[in-house]
Amino acid sequence: MKKQYAVIGLGRFGGSMCKALADQGMEVLAIDIDEDRVNEFSNVVTHAVIADSTDEGVLKSLGIRNFQHVVVAIGDNLQSSILTTLILKEMGVEKITVKAQNDYHEKVLRKIGADKIIHPERDMGVRIAHQIVSNNVLDYLELSDEHSIVELVATKKMNNKSLIELDIRAKYGCNVVAVKRGKDIYVSPQADQSIHQGDVLIVIGGDKDINRLEKQMANEE
Amino acid sequence: MKKQYAVIGLGRFGGSMCKALADQGMEVLAIDIDEDRVNEFSNVVTHAVIADSTDEGVLKSLGIRNFQHVVVAIGDNLQSSILTTLILKEMGVEKITVKAQNDYHEKVLRKIGADKIIHPERDMGVRIAHQIVSNNVLDYLELSDEHSIVELVATKKMNNKSLIELDIRAKYGCNVVAVKRGKDIYVSPQADQSIHQGDVLIVIGGDKDINRLEKQMANEE
Ligand SMILES: Nc1ncnc2c1ncn2[C@@H]1O[C@H](COP(=O)(O)OP(=O)(O)OP(=O)(O)O)[C@@H](O)[C@H]1O
Ligand SMILES: Nc1ncnc2c1ncn2[C@@H]1O[C@H](COP(=O)(O)OP(=O)(O)OP(=O)(O)O)[C@@H](O)[C@H]1O
Ligand SMILES: [Ca+2]
Ligand SMILES: [Ca+2]
Ligand SMILES: [Ca+2]
Ligand SMILES: [Ca+2]
Repeated sequence: MKKQYAVIGLGRFGGSMCKALADQGMEVLAIDIDEDRVNEFSNVVTHAVIADSTDEGVLKSLGIRNFQHVVVAIGDNLQSSILTTLILKEMGVEKITVKAQNDYHEKVLRKIGADKIIHPERDMGVRIAHQIVSNNVLDYLELSDEHSIVELVATKKMNNKSLIELDIRAKYGCNVVAVKRGKDIYVSPQADQSIHQGDVLIVIGGDKDINRLEKQMANEE
Repeated sequence: MKKQYAVIGLGRFGGSMCKALADQGMEVLAIDIDEDRVNEFSNVVTHAVIADSTDEGVLKSLGIRNFQHVVVAIGDNLQSSILTTLILKEMGVEKITVKAQNDYHEKVLRKIGADKIIHPERDMGVRIAHQIVSNNVLDYLELSDEHSIVELVATKKMNNKSLIELDIRAKYGCNVVAVKRGKDIYVSPQADQSIHQGDVLIVIGGDKDINRLEKQMANEE
């Protein structure tokens, strides 16, 4: 049976989740108390309904207990967010993800049993900070406290050098796991893969090692 | 000379940027019109000042034109966000990153010359949607339209098998670039690396290939 998702609250976060889930071919029920927002999503998702999620009867009649994953994306109204989560939990919904506004909100949500709690603004702040520290860093994935994967733009000085000539592994202890050039991508590149200026190197390594490499590349600009 | 960053607006997004920049050892000037918020950050960043960023004279006296990168993280008050960006641009600030609330806001910001525009809620919506579609996916980095890096939790069926036995590359065309086990991380694991249930596999590959692997692993749960 196909998994069913529900998203409650169609603000920027909830709305974007609906679109991405639908893009991935998922069945999505979108719920908002606001008619205009619901209309906006009627063509995006499988079902879009106007409903107040703090009304237990309404959630029951929508059969929400049978959904595999429900996302509560109500932001500003903490009371509604908390009450909705509580009702979903009591109904026995398998997995509940909730957008939190602040630490207090998160604490309450954990107590009542939310499975996953998201701080979109806070998390994006950390991501963007990593990106802007080096102009060469396009994107960034934290693997652990001390290891990351980063996308780095190859400098002029790297142009027409092979990976073995650049010797990033020996010099910085980092591994190039893929190279992007325009629309092409070379996964697990060989040592003789030649690099062009502007190529995007996908690099995995320790944060300190990556930082040294980033700094060196920034100086080459 | 060390790069200097300024962050205007210390909400969740701006505040989190300040912390992350400071964590990376950067010099940060934090600005907010609200005294309480400024006090909260006085021990986090190099300098924290109470100021209205729509006041050109104040920005001048702070010497903001000499900063390499200024982040405008004023959200709800579109007028202040736009006016602040305009002033920074006219002063000749090298790089300006702005948090946008909606498409209209983004359009205006592009017109007046903002270098980078961020939609934290929208972007996190897409990220989280990818994570929740598969229970095994912990995090996710989009490399291109068709390639990604994902963190997948090793299933029970994978327990005590080596990478060569699992043969993920031949079966799914994906590469395991690292394995996380608790606090340890094994970068570029060898073929005889054995996998335990609950290990996190960092996998790079085409989206379709990764999807096949994710589905297989979901069925093994
Ligand atoms: N009780 C409720 N039932 C259903 N939907 C609700 C309820 N309360 C609020 N909502 C909806 O939740 C959505 C998100 O609310 P929020 O106050 O966070 O708006 P937002 O700031 O636009 O969202 P975001 O921060 O994701 O951009 C709104 O569309 C709102 O109508
Ligand atoms: N003209 C201004 N000069 C300086 N700071 C300002 C100005 N206008 C607003 N701010 C500050 O910008 C910060 C962010 O504003 P916003 O309205 O987006 O708050 P928020 O919703 O808490 O932020 P976030 O969405 O990042 O969580 C606030 O701390 C506010 O005091
Ligand atoms: Ca909000
Ligand atoms: Ca880190
Ligand atoms: Ca806001
Ligand atoms: Ca993709």
